[in-house]
Amino acid sequence: MVDAFWSETIGTAILILLGAGVVANAILPRTKGFGGGWLMINFGWGLAVFAGVYAAYKSGAHLNPAVTIGIWAAGREEFAPGIPVTALNGVLYVTAQMLGAAVGAGLAYLAYKKHFDQDADPAVKLGVFSTGPELRSYGWNFLTEVVATFVLIFFVLAFGETPAEIGPLAVALVVVGIGASLGGPTGYAINPARDLGPRIAHALLPIKGKGSSDWAYAWVPIAGPLLGGVLAGLLARVYVG
Amino acid sequence: MVDAFWSETIGTAILILLGAGVVANAILPRTKGFGGGWLMINFGWGLAVFAGVYAAYKSGAHLNPAVTIGIWAAGREEFAPGIPVTALNGVLYVTAQMLGAAVGAGLAYLAYKKHFDQDADPAVKLGVFSTGPELRSYGWNFLTEVVATFVLIFFVLAFGETPAEIGPLAVALVVVGIGASLGGPTGYAINPARDLGPRIAHALLPIKGKGSSDWAYAWVPIAGPLLGGVLAGLLARVYVG
Amino acid sequence: MVDAFWSETIGTAILILLGAGVVANAILPRTKGFGGGWLMINFGWGLAVFAGVYAAYKSGAHLNPAVTIGIWAAGREEFAPGIPVTALNGVLYVTAQMLGAAVGAGLAYLAYKKHFDQDADPAVKLGVFSTGPELRSYGWNFLTEVVATFVLIFFVLAFGETPAEIGPLAVALVVVGIGASLGGPTGYAINPARDLGPRIAHALLPIKGKGSSDWAYAWVPIAGPLLGGVLAGLLARVYVG
Amino acid sequence: MVDAFWSETIGTAILILLGAGVVANAILPRTKGFGGGWLMINFGWGLAVFAGVYAAYKSGAHLNPAVTIGIWAAGREEFAPGIPVTALNGVLYVTAQMLGAAVGAGLAYLAYKKHFDQDADPAVKLGVFSTGPELRSYGWNFLTEVVATFVLIFFVLAFGETPAEIGPLAVALVVVGIGASLGGPTGYAINPARDLGPRIAHALLPIKGKGSSDWAYAWVPIAGPLLGGVLAGLLARVYVG
Repeated sequence: MVDAFWSETIGTAILILLGAGVVANAILPRTKGFGGGWLMINFGWGLAVFAGVYAAYKSGAHLNPAVTIGIWAAGREEFAPGIPVTALNGVLYVTAQMLGAAVGAGLAYLAYKKHFDQDADPAVKLGVFSTGPELRSYGWNFLTEVVATFVLIFFVLAFGETPAEIGPLAVALVVVGIGASLGGPTGYAINPARDLGPRIAHALLPIKGKGSSDWAYAWVPIAGPLLGGVLAGLLARVYVG
Repeated sequence: MVDAFWSETIGTAILILLGAGVVANAILPRTKGFGGGWLMINFGWGLAVFAGVYAAYKSGAHLNPAVTIGIWAAGREEFAPGIPVTALNGVLYVTAQMLGAAVGAGLAYLAYKKHFDQDADPAVKLGVFSTGPELRSYGWNFLTEVVATFVLIFFVLAFGETPAEIGPLAVALVVVGIGASLGGPTGYAINPARDLGPRIAHALLPIKGKGSSDWAYAWVPIAGPLLGGVLAGLLARVYVG
Repeated sequence: MVDAFWSETIGTAILILLGAGVVANAILPRTKGFGGGWLMINFGWGLAVFAGVYAAYKSGAHLNPAVTIGIWAAGREEFAPGIPVTALNGVLYVTAQMLGAAVGAGLAYLAYKKHFDQDADPAVKLGVFSTGPELRSYGWNFLTEVVATFVLIFFVLAFGETPAEIGPLAVALVVVGIGASLGGPTGYAINPARDLGPRIAHALLPIKGKGSSDWAYAWVPIAGPLLGGVLAGLLARVYVG
Repeated sequence: MVDAFWSETIGTAILILLGAGVVANAILPRTKGFGGGWLMINFGWGLAVFAGVYAAYKSGAHLNPAVTIGIWAAGREEFAPGIPVTALNGVLYVTAQMLGAAVGAGLAYLAYKKHFDQDADPAVKLGVFSTGPELRSYGWNFLTEVVATFVLIFFVLAFGETPAEIGPLAVALVVVGIGASLGGPTGYAINPARDLGPRIAHALLPIKGKGSSDWAYAWVPIAGPLLGGVLAGLLARVYVG
């Protein structure tokens, strides 16, 4: 389980380093990818998952509390080969994911340090770290996160039933697709660690000209993905077995 | 066959949720992906197929009446392992596809509810649900749908002959390609359920500021794909066997 | 060999239908993909190869005289399993490719008929069918085609040496890459049939407002790819064996 | 080892030909891909790696001194099957990579010769060959290259632990992702040969209207990737084994 802890930490750190990085590239001033568009962001996050999953091969590569809770809700016996589903193991997984996410956000900050030092709207700088809705409505934003995460976790629980040898690429591509399709309203957290870890990093880091960390919204990308994960787990329990 | 019914329903619902979602993201007001472009829409739909096919693993993942009719026209013996080609099974497949498509469109509506509430041209709001031509000409629009669906169904019936272990990714990528290449005139329904199910949802849902559901055009994305599927099945019967 | 002839014909027809289609979608007036950009065109052509290769499984899916001549130059014994490298077979392959390319261009014309009927620069309409250089210089344009085709054919002759089970996707992706990287000056014919077949179709079809078929340039996308294919074959003969 | 030398040379030449090519297409005047955007550049470079790796199948396809040094730092015993990790072999690998990179840059110059002959900012012409930062700060630029290369080399050393049969596509996609995510500040050399080889070619070639080869910056994309590779190797030594 020590191996699994570090596996989740490293994998989630790479996930968030690349994921926050592509947003930084798309929206911070004077980057080479400035204005690169939504599809670039979708591919960046999808390939962030891709790299993170390969790195986290010792823990089944959850990288996301919604995956961990979804496996539990589906009634599976193991989080990964040799790691039983227990409350303690679940806490360790989520702790590692949160730690990795904060570290990854910090590395992305360092990689783009000179661009964070430029003048920009504080909301843009926060946007590299955490998600926020285009049209704020906690109820509907919550629902969007539930639906989008449901698709992700149901896919994760079902895709092993179809023979194909592409491995982590399957999950990466579905993340590209969910981002393109369901990321429009809220920016698709679909992962509580992806949002909360970097939001904590945003609060702690000495970012030049930073503004609020928008804690009022922070519960949405936590609660929505967790409920989506549980619902997907329950359907998978009936449908996939 | 009960399993297969729900498999087609769930798979088609995910297909349309993600497919309608990417269009909503690209064209509804104030989304993060607004103006994301045609290639984003193509990848969104292709990956919608990808996710839907993995979800529908119990039914061979038709998700499309043109696939079902194409398998029949090709003279195959089974819709999926253990499910013989019969009229009743065909009706059940198509019913499940229509049901799933309508449900998926309703979920996409909920995910983008606040964006549908914004002011926009009614034709834009309909465009999230159903296809429509850029230059209206029923005959030529019909022909375009025949040709595009022919390519899809012929591919579906032939690609198993080439060894490669990428599974549903092959079909997903061909859908990306058909959209990029042949979607320009009509928006590539290439699937009667993809168009009719959401059109019914559009007619029933209380969408703010909605206009006509354009029933005058509705036969084109039904009849064109069905004929394309039959023609592909007939060629596959001779060429693939 | 009859099977192989029709396999090359069908595969090349699908290649050109989708390839010409994506250009039509990107540049003809009032399409949904108008202005979709170079990357969309690259993916469209790459996935056109993808679909065509799966369709042409009975002939080894050359779809390109430069592949056929490259296999000969590499000293291989068979064009495909059971089809020996002979002059007659080579002629049949190339004939089928030319026939398929012309048919595919005709189908793309029909799919985009209403858009061809719109007013547009005759060079735009020709651009759906055949390649043309941005800066005309027969010598340098020829060299660009030699280099780009060399990369393609060398890849085709070498990639089987690396274990991976992705099949035709490998060639499709390299075509995406060559288009993105080396398509800038001439539009990457990299295939004599891809250029000449549609150019003949352009000359014959009753396209509204069409102009010259630019026969003065037609030798470049024939001779350049053939020389590139031969050079790749010769290097592969030494390097790959 | 003679085979491995030519394998690295050919593979790196193809890598740089396609990689420099996509930048030329995106930024040189009057190309078909002009203004194609950052995602097109990311895919171009990723698929350049893809093609180069398949071509370099006799040497394990390092194509990058950071890979070679990372394998050494990880304590692996062989650079490729049958090629032990020795100082001499390391020098031969790096020499071949440098040679191939310079040749590839020369070929890209020839393919885009008429576009290099157009009037353009000398910095644009240099940008086809070598990387340069958007915001010059040697320390932070160096750090960005360390972080980005660390992700690449750690992935290369770890991804074999996850079963999947997609082969070189995995590395290609991670390069797409690193470019989208971490390429914003410096243009992601992440490979000393990718930067120095073409910079030498830029200095030597008779490019019309060329300016400085910016030797003051040249150490950053050498030292950063090498340190990133060593750090990744050291972590992999502990984590992967």
